[in-house]
Amino acid sequence: MSAGWFRRRFLPGGPLPAPRPPRPRSSPVPYRRPRFLRGSGSGPGTADAPRRPDVRPVRSPARGRALPWNAGYAEIINAEKSEFNEDQAACGQLCIRRCEFGAEEDQEWLTSCPEEFLTGHYWALFDGHGGPAAAILAANTLHSCLRRQLEAVVEGMVATQPPMHLSGHSICPSDPQFVEEKGIRAEDLVIGALESAFQECDEVIGRELEASGQVGGCTALVAVSLQGKLYVANAGDSRAILVRKDEVRPLSSEFTPETERQRIQQLAFVYPELLAGEFTRLEFPRRLKGDDLGQKVLFRDHHMRGWSYKCVEKSDLKYPLIHGQGRQARLLGTLAVSRGLGDHQLKVLDTNIQLKPFLLSVPQVTVLDVDQLELQEEDVVVMATDGLWDVLSNEQVARLVRSFLPGNREDPHRFSELAQMLIHSTQGKDDGLTEEGQVSYDDISVFVIPLHSQGQRSSGH
Amino acid sequence: MSAGWFRRRFLPGGPLPAPRPPRPRSSPVPYRRPRFLRGSGSGPGTADAPRRPDVRPVRSPARGRALPWNAGYAEIINAEKSEFNEDQAACGQLCIRRCEFGAEEDQEWLTSCPEEFLTGHYWALFDGHGGPAAAILAANTLHSCLRRQLEAVVEGMVATQPPMHLSGHSICPSDPQFVEEKGIRAEDLVIGALESAFQECDEVIGRELEASGQVGGCTALVAVSLQGKLYVANAGDSRAILVRKDEVRPLSSEFTPETERQRIQQLAFVYPELLAGEFTRLEFPRRLKGDDLGQKVLFRDHHMRGWSYKCVEKSDLKYPLIHGQGRQARLLGTLAVSRGLGDHQLKVLDTNIQLKPFLLSVPQVTVLDVDQLELQEEDVVVMATDGLWDVLSNEQVARLVRSFLPGNREDPHRFSELAQMLIHSTQGKDDGLTEEGQVSYDDISVFVIPLHSQGQRSSGH
Repeated sequence: MSAGWFRRRFLPGGPLPAPRPPRPRSSPVPYRRPRFLRGSGSGPGTADAPRRPDVRPVRSPARGRALPWNAGYAEIINAEKSEFNEDQAACGQLCIRRCEFGAEEDQEWLTSCPEEFLTGHYWALFDGHGGPAAAILAANTLHSCLRRQLEAVVEGMVATQPPMHLSGHSICPSDPQFVEEKGIRAEDLVIGALESAFQECDEVIGRELEASGQVGGCTALVAVSLQGKLYVANAGDSRAILVRKDEVRPLSSEFTPETERQRIQQLAFVYPELLAGEFTRLEFPRRLKGDDLGQKVLFRDHHMRGWSYKCVEKSDLKYPLIHGQGRQARLLGTLAVSRGLGDHQLKVLDTNIQLKPFLLSVPQVTVLDVDQLELQEEDVVVMATDGLWDVLSNEQVARLVRSFLPGNREDPHRFSELAQMLIHSTQGKDDGLTEEGQVSYDDISVFVIPLHSQGQRSSGH
Repeated sequence: MSAGWFRRRFLPGGPLPAPRPPRPRSSPVPYRRPRFLRGSGSGPGTADAPRRPDVRPVRSPARGRALPWNAGYAEIINAEKSEFNEDQAACGQLCIRRCEFGAEEDQEWLTSCPEEFLTGHYWALFDGHGGPAAAILAANTLHSCLRRQLEAVVEGMVATQPPMHLSGHSICPSDPQFVEEKGIRAEDLVIGALESAFQECDEVIGRELEASGQVGGCTALVAVSLQGKLYVANAGDSRAILVRKDEVRPLSSEFTPETERQRIQQLAFVYPELLAGEFTRLEFPRRLKGDDLGQKVLFRDHHMRGWSYKCVEKSDLKYPLIHGQGRQARLLGTLAVSRGLGDHQLKVLDTNIQLKPFLLSVPQVTVLDVDQLELQEEDVVVMATDGLWDVLSNEQVARLVRSFLPGNREDPHRFSELAQMLIHSTQGKDDGLTEEGQVSYDDISVFVIPLHSQGQRSSGH
């Protein structure tokens, strides 16, 4: 396995180049072959994504450059929906340097990965909205933020137990006891690094978009393999699942105005001025009308998981903070997700009401202890943007995985073929897999990551 | 089963009578026999609890008045800990009237329970701090708040699906469709009623304590059986578990400064003035000292589930918003719980910093569909204040339940005996049940509620 690395220092700096126009298409493209990484330093991506010198793929002897662990990747750009592809992806090897305390700011970065580095792998999907700019920036930036955050704590990550003081200058003899009582483990440092990296990347995107006069936001779903564990960090409505022979396990939760209703209503309760008198914080089964005035209707407020009735007042007739159902649910009538990166400039149409205070950039991180699983050859993680999950359930995806992989063991590209097949299944073909008429009109990106034998591949420090 | 009812209108009104001094005791009492309800209108309680005319027990032919479903109850007052018993309990039958829309304010309350009423049962434990006043008020008040909240929505509760408009004056023909799409069921109205009742009770306690010049707060754990379901509402660190032959299922979660760290830190992040410059929002493994200045130490902030390192600044040396570990964890150095009733006047010692903005009165409600369980004769719910769970794990309690009940099927008081036995096990007897030296010095109250055949007993409307 050849070495890959992140070469440039964080940050790339400078304004974001304007996105290039999409390649001319003779006809709407139902799906595309997965975009393998070509040449040094490029990540999987689309024509309108700028070059990504920070991500280098592992080399696949069979077919030029391939994705880490020979993972599969496929994407679809739906020509009718948007001018540019709003899905972006990135993957590569993570090489984490061990820095001397206090000296990291002064050192030149090496361009190779000596053995003493901690190495891991990184896969990321970004689903943009309001244009592709934020997704492109995230695909260019997030791994650099993550590497930097991991390097800041790597000394603690490789210790048996993270030390209270990073430099090892323990002051209080019982420091290790305090750390143990809090149950702090090496994996908590990786979780913390992922959380901080998302926040940092969000700030970068905000600055870059403002400097270049562009707008937009994106969801982010990241999988990182490190020290025998797979970390899945999610902010938005993409999804990752583990598929094994007898098990389908969700590795992420979706963050939408519906799933985060109470947090969003709570903020509006604490800061009513965020709604500028234009919206009602309360949830009703439907938008109220003048005829409802004075009647007792179902409602719930920020502190309620259950429902109650209230007498309708005039202020209840305002547009609801969260409105609509399922895929149609919108925050402030504008946005379908409640976490993600970017959107710093996003306002409700024709008002000064900003969306950002209600959006979180912090992901939820789940940890899969891969070393503890008795892995089979067909055990995979499927990561995909929401377009796939709108049409296929976890169980349907698992059925496809289980029906495809065993018969294609000799095919070196079988995980890419599987990713394509999954996308194919969302295009309304009558294959008995999806309910009749279930077709996705969204951009879709899929990673299929084989877990088998990753323990040997993701060698430690 | 004879009828019981809540007779008085909400609220009892007037200032709270000053708690009476405890009965003289010749020696510290290791545990007491369960306090069965005596005479009409009294609930289980202690000597210092005022009379509770609102709670009436069901009649037990065998032994005067007994608890609903012949549930068992036992309590211990630890003489060394506090002058007054800070644990309080209440239980009885809930009779919910079906009110005509708009007319409920004008009607006299009946003193019997006609068949058309919805009936249920109610058990509640309150663990006070800063004196028994809040716990006594809660034991006197919460069931009235709950009954009132349930009566306000009972029309929706008995419908196949709660109507959008309580009075049935549907405006939009697709209203039922909206309600169905939101998945709103009758049980959501009970959950909403419990949530609102806790909030209302909290406001009552605040007003009553202020009027009587008293202080204090309490946790609240409530179980309500209604329409074939058992609702468990919890605000604080008491706990309820379901014990069956092959299953132990937690029915509540504890709310402490540790379990609600992110919510509490988030509030301090949004409103730093709540800390008045006296506390640091950040969490460290131990309180920092001057020697830590300038070093990189483990920390986490409101957005982090994981940990990271930060360079210690002077402001980090302040007392932490949440400090200590496990049972010693304190909010603002003062309080061991993060949800409950009361505490409106509570301030950090010698400061003007109030605890209340960080405390929530809203409970978490879990629903047990009793009608769907294939109940066995020994299936019980065990509710207890934190003193029990400090010493016994869920599994240990389950083991005691399973070892005691089958051999005592003929004993009509076996559930009370079991409650006593559970308390007995926390008093440091070397019975091999608890780890050596595990002794509780806390007030403890326990309900043991048998579920078998409750379906017939808790008859619907």
